Amino acid sequence: MEKIKQLQQDFAEFLANTNFNGQPKELYEPIAYTILQSGKRLRPMLCLLANELFDGDEQQALWPALALETFHNFTLIHDDIMDKAPMRRGMPTVYQKWNADIAILSGDAMLAQAFQYALKPDKGAELARQLGKVAIEICEGQQMDLNFETLGNVTIPEYLEMIRLKTAVLLATALQMGATVAGAKETDIQHLYDFGINLGMSFQLQDDILDLYSDVAVFGKRHGGDIADNKKTYLYLKALEMASEKDRKRLEQLFALRIGHDEEEKIEEVQSIYDRLQVREAVEQVMLDYDHKAFAALEAIDLPEERKTHLRTYAELLSGRKK
Amino acid sequence: MEKIKQLQQDFAEFLANTNFNGQPKELYEPIAYTILQSGKRLRPMLCLLANELFDGDEQQALWPALALETFHNFTLIHDDIMDKAPMRRGMPTVYQKWNADIAILSGDAMLAQAFQYALKPDKGAELARQLGKVAIEICEGQQMDLNFETLGNVTIPEYLEMIRLKTAVLLATALQMGATVAGAKETDIQHLYDFGINLGMSFQLQDDILDLYSDVAVFGKRHGGDIADNKKTYLYLKALEMASEKDRKRLEQLFALRIGHDEEEKIEEVQSIYDRLQVREAVEQVMLDYDHKAFAALEAIDLPEERKTHLRTYAELLSGRKK
Repeated sequence: MEKIKQLQQDFAEFLANTNFNGQPKELYEPIAYTILQSGKRLRPMLCLLANELFDGDEQQALWPALALETFHNFTLIHDDIMDKAPMRRGMPTVYQKWNADIAILSGDAMLAQAFQYALKPDKGAELARQLGKVAIEICEGQQMDLNFETLGNVTIPEYLEMIRLKTAVLLATALQMGATVAGAKETDIQHLYDFGINLGMSFQLQDDILDLYSDVAVFGKRHGGDIADNKKTYLYLKALEMASEKDRKRLEQLFALRIGHDEEEKIEEVQSIYDRLQVREAVEQVMLDYDHKAFAALEAIDLPEERKTHLRTYAELLSGRKK
Repeated sequence: MEKIKQLQQDFAEFLANTNFNGQPKELYEPIAYTILQSGKRLRPMLCLLANELFDGDEQQALWPALALETFHNFTLIHDDIMDKAPMRRGMPTVYQKWNADIAILSGDAMLAQAFQYALKPDKGAELARQLGKVAIEICEGQQMDLNFETLGNVTIPEYLEMIRLKTAVLLATALQMGATVAGAKETDIQHLYDFGINLGMSFQLQDDILDLYSDVAVFGKRHGGDIADNKKTYLYLKALEMASEKDRKRLEQLFALRIGHDEEEKIEEVQSIYDRLQVREAVEQVMLDYDHKAFAALEAIDLPEERKTHLRTYAELLSGRKK
C-alpha cells in the first residue's frame, strides 16, 4: 500500500507541475478545468505500476501516465457532448460550462497533447503507436454504444465487444505502456495486456451492477440510472436471455418507456424481475470469470510472485470497490 | 510540371490503396466519404515536393503525406460542425449528412489515424511530434477565429496571428515533414518552414481577396460571402485602418447587419467603399511582401537553384490560382 500511495503522490505532483495554460484562454481553461479535477487516476496508476513491476525508470513512465490521463479526459469531454451530460464528478461538464464548440476544440487539443506526452520518453514512437491504436478502438466502442441507443436488439457478444473497446482496451494499454517503457519482453507485455482486458471487462460489469445494487451514498450515482435511461446494459441483456416470454415482453415494454411515467416505479418493477430471475448472481458469475482470467494472466508473467504484489493489491482494491 | 503530375498521381494511388473501411460502419463511412472526395492535395504535395527537394525516398514520404491529408480532413469535419456548414466541395458535410455526434467521433478517429500514419517511417517519432505541435496550433487558430466572431475589435496583428495558426503552420509543417523524412539538415528545414509560413500567409490573404474579387465560376464560392457573413477578414480590417471616420462608422454599421436586409446591396456598398479606399491594392501589396519573403527563404536553402524548380513551380501555380 505504501508503494501505491507513493506512486499516486508522484503522479499528482507531476500533474501539478505540468503547465496547462496557454492562449487563447478559451481553449486552455477547459483543459486545465477537466484534467485538474480530482479523479482516481486509474490509468496513470496502472501505467506506473506496470513500469514498477519490471523495475523501469519512473521518471520515464510519468510521461505515458500523463498521456493516458490527458487522453482519458479528452474522451470524457467529447462523450459528454454526445450524451448531453450536464454534470461529471459533481461539476458542470465543459460542454455545459462553456459550449459544444469549445468542448470539441479543447478535446481535440488534448488528444494531440496526449501524443506529445507519449512521445517524450526514449520509447516514444512505440508508446505513441499504442496510444493511436487504443484511440481508434475507443472511437469504435463509443460509436457502437451510440448505435445501441437506437438498435432494437443488441446481443450479449455485441455488448461485450462494445465494453471491451470502450473501457477494457484503455486499461490494458495503460499497463502495456508502462511495461514498454520499462523494456519488458513481448510475452510478458502480452500477459499484462490480457490482465488489463479481463480486469476492464470485470470492472465494467461491476459498474453495471453497482448502478442498481449499490449504496448510492458510496457510489455517488443516481440509483437505477441505467434503467431510467433505458440503457441496454449487461444486466438487461442477461435478463432478456434468462426471462420467460412474458417477462421478456414486459422488460421490453418497460425499456421502451420514455417520458411521462413514474421513474421510481419503473426501476422497482425492473429490479423485481431481475431479482426473481437472479440476474445479479448470473452477472456476478461472469464478472468472476473475468477476474479469474485476469489474475491467471498476471500469474503467467515471468517474474517472482512477490514482485507482483503492488499491482495485484491495486487490482484487488479496484475489484472490491465497495470496501 | 511532369514531376508535379507524377507526384500527384503517386499520392492518388497511395490513397486509393489505403483501406478506410472498418466497423462500425457509422464511424468509418464518413472518413472514407471525406478523404476520398477530390481535393487538390496541397499538403501532401508540399510534403512530397520537399522530400524530393532533398532527394528523399518517396515511399517513406507518402506516409507523412497521408498523415497530413487525413489530419487536414479531420479539421474540416470538426470545423464544419462549429460553422454549421451544410456543404463543402459541393457535397453535404459529414455533420449534415450524418449528425454532429458522428462528425465528432469520425474526426477524432481521423486525428488518431493521422498519428498512426506519421509514425510509419523510420523518422516516425519526429514526424509525430511535428504533427502534434501543428495540431495544437491549429486548435488555437480555430479558437481565435471563433473568438473573433463575437469580439468587437480585432486588430490586424491578431488577425495575422490567427491565419498563421489556422492556415500557414500546416503548409509549413507539410514541407518540414517531407524534408525531415529526407534527412535534410536543420537550417534547411527551418528555411523551408519559413517558406511555408510566408506562402501560407499570402495564400490566405489571396483567399480573402478572391472571395470578393474573383470570377465566381472559377473560384466556386459565393461572391462576397465573407461580407454577407460579417467576417472580419484582412480586407475589412485594412479598410477600417485606411478609412475616414465616416467610412469607418458606415463599415461597422454594415458589418453589424444580421438578417432582414438586402445582401447584394450590402456587398455592393462595402465593395464600393473598399474600391474608393483602394483596399484591394493595399492587401495585394501585403500579399506580395509575404510572397517575396517566401521565395527569399526558398533561395536561402543550401542547394543548387535548379533542384528547387519543382517546388518553386508548384508554389507559383498556387499563388497564381486564377491561371
